[in-house]
Amino acid sequence: MPKLSMKAASMPSSPIRKLVPFAEAAKSQGKHVIHLNIGQPDIETPESARNAVKNTDIKVLEYSHSAGFESYRKGLAEYYGKNDIEVSQDEIIITTGGSEALLFGFSVALNPGDEVIIPEPFYANYNGFATAAGINIIPVTSTIENGFSLPSIEEFEKKITPKTKAILICNPGNPTGYLYTQEELEKLSELIKKKDLFLFADEVYREFCYDGATPFSVMNLKGMEENVILIDSVSKRYSMCGARIGALISRNKEFMDAAMKFAQARLSPPTYAQIAAEGALKTPQSYFDEVTIEYVARRDIMVDGLNKIKGVNCPKPKGAFYAVAEFPVEDTEHFCQWLLEDFEHEGSTVMMAPLSGFYATPGLGKKEARIAYVLEKKELEKALVCIEKALEIYPHTTY
Amino acid sequence: MPKLSMKAASMPSSPIRKLVPFAEAAKSQGKHVIHLNIGQPDIETPESARNAVKNTDIKVLEYSHSAGFESYRKGLAEYYGKNDIEVSQDEIIITTGGSEALLFGFSVALNPGDEVIIPEPFYANYNGFATAAGINIIPVTSTIENGFSLPSIEEFEKKITPKTKAILICNPGNPTGYLYTQEELEKLSELIKKKDLFLFADEVYREFCYDGATPFSVMNLKGMEENVILIDSVSKRYSMCGARIGALISRNKEFMDAAMKFAQARLSPPTYAQIAAEGALKTPQSYFDEVTIEYVARRDIMVDGLNKIKGVNCPKPKGAFYAVAEFPVEDTEHFCQWLLEDFEHEGSTVMMAPLSGFYATPGLGKKEARIAYVLEKKELEKALVCIEKALEIYPHTTY
Ligand SMILES: Cc1ncc(COP(=O)(O)O)c(C=O)c1O
Ligand SMILES: Cc1ncc(COP(=O)(O)O)c(C=O)c1O
Repeated sequence: MPKLSMKAASMPSSPIRKLVPFAEAAKSQGKHVIHLNIGQPDIETPESARNAVKNTDIKVLEYSHSAGFESYRKGLAEYYGKNDIEVSQDEIIITTGGSEALLFGFSVALNPGDEVIIPEPFYANYNGFATAAGINIIPVTSTIENGFSLPSIEEFEKKITPKTKAILICNPGNPTGYLYTQEELEKLSELIKKKDLFLFADEVYREFCYDGATPFSVMNLKGMEENVILIDSVSKRYSMCGARIGALISRNKEFMDAAMKFAQARLSPPTYAQIAAEGALKTPQSYFDEVTIEYVARRDIMVDGLNKIKGVNCPKPKGAFYAVAEFPVEDTEHFCQWLLEDFEHEGSTVMMAPLSGFYATPGLGKKEARIAYVLEKKELEKALVCIEKALEIYPHTTY
Repeated sequence: MPKLSMKAASMPSSPIRKLVPFAEAAKSQGKHVIHLNIGQPDIETPESARNAVKNTDIKVLEYSHSAGFESYRKGLAEYYGKNDIEVSQDEIIITTGGSEALLFGFSVALNPGDEVIIPEPFYANYNGFATAAGINIIPVTSTIENGFSLPSIEEFEKKITPKTKAILICNPGNPTGYLYTQEELEKLSELIKKKDLFLFADEVYREFCYDGATPFSVMNLKGMEENVILIDSVSKRYSMCGARIGALISRNKEFMDAAMKFAQARLSPPTYAQIAAEGALKTPQSYFDEVTIEYVARRDIMVDGLNKIKGVNCPKPKGAFYAVAEFPVEDTEHFCQWLLEDFEHEGSTVMMAPLSGFYATPGLGKKEARIAYVLEKKELEKALVCIEKALEIYPHTTY
């Protein structure tokens, strides 16, 4: 048979997927698996989004404009305006999820072989888009000791080579939940300017900020019009991951013109999903307020609960719906698999995402796992009991 | 500002788009522009597709399986079965349009710098996906004199180099409407086997075959399990271009496993659209029969009408809803622009797609244009009158 490409060979598979067969086996044995491993919120999609689709009287489901409905781009620009981010509809291309925005962004800004610096641990699918675009990710390590705050600018500077074209940050972060401060971002932007790089910011969790913290968007960095590329998505904001609507946003006209050609080649983003996303713009503030209250309560249960377990350390994140915890074990890959294969407590067990797959540097994150607190509080409490009991009997617990 | 990538610089823009500003100007002057330039059918999307979405009681719009709903893949496999194509659901990945299937296919099979041979004229967006994947398209020319039938196998063989990894055909063809015979495909498959290449077949127009012709799918070529990659889409079949649902299909397990990793990185195809596409599977045969009758009538009006115009030559295609005509002019790019800028007949003018952008070889297709007969018969008749009158007064008519 003909040989596959090098990209096919090196395309990583998601670090979460390795455990899926074990979870399935556990379920088929009748175990109740508490999924702390996925970023799929259980919150209802706003009614205005669902009703917009139900009520549409579309007869011919046509291609939309390649940049997305004009009415939706206009509405989205207004949404940003209300959130103190000034953008015009011409600075927005609607994409098929934030995922497509990332792929377009990498392809427009970087040549194959070029480098993008990303603080690790990072969203593992960045690896996939980098492989697809033929570019290389250079990690800068953030640490659990510092709560995953931005590594020092010197650390970034050390990694810059003639091939460096961009720095990518995720704010608030997946998997860390860390929310970068305005000060951190301003320091980073000085470096970006000095080295004339692109700054990609994945802000798909912007609406999930807690304890009174307000997110500072890279779009509000001064003098960065040509450098800043924003990646956004409705997936998490409105709990509508399946819609597949995101956005690529920049004030750099040349960049956007080039991105439009990529958008035109694939014709258009999905129509029904755009109708839903446009409907979602009517979501009242009370929806977000309720969601925030719910997530804060979940986070507090989860993080406080984890920190009470002997040997577990979990910095309390200010954003997104993830937390990274360190466990008293040698290797969370083994621990997480063991939880599925060999453990149960009152019929239940827990599935977490081992963190090593979120690092680009081999060997890091071996004691860490990501926990997504996207489940009801009762389930989270059950999960905490499971983890505590499990550590008591796991053969390789190190405390 | 930071420099953009070479891909950004070389990403082609669609040959149709160049004329769009002229069409807009014509409209703002009050001219009625008859759009023969676009592949967006005016046929209604089947009710079963639209109702499936209207009636869904989804509460949380979740990511679907990265390969698409299992129920939809199963239904789709049955659909193929009824159309004499045996595939199982495991040999199908649901994609975001045929567009994404093409991009995945190129990325999995070809290394950057590798070559895919495509008979020209071809669907212009193949250029975009090739640029995105970093691969090169090598054209083999088919000619209007031969009705755009498959170039001889010797012509293909001449183009094969150590970098050749695949041949791509579109059947029935856009822009030509040509339907390859089983014999043509079998000859091609011998070459594919001999040189151990992939055969990509874009069959998104499969349901549009006329005059009793039945399409022969590459999936039915014998002994080609490891080589054949099918690109499909619901866009044209059910007139639901905006859904963005396609499929990548192959019996080559290694290929599909690699493609799955690309699918997983972008998470999932759009949910509402999958619901619509699954609903569309219930479309009765009568829908297709009616559509076929309608398109045959349109084709006959258009093609017969064109051939009656002095100096115009238009082979009658057996498939899709496009035809390529040769006009008695030096340059259809100029002629088509002139039609929009400087011509009108009883308040109307015509927009066609100049064919040079559908060729990879510079200088070809200068007398040709693509006509999409996706409009009502009355409009097509009006268009014919416009074209005839226009040629009578166009300053560069060569008859
Ligand atoms: C950090 C981050 N960026 C981007 C995405 C992609 O999301 P989508 O393509 O659904 O917008 C995700 C999804 O989990 C994510 O966590
Ligand atoms: C030949 C051909 N292939 C693929 C496509 C892509 O269609 P879609 O992405 O809507 O499935 C088109 C659209 O016009 C086409 O004409």
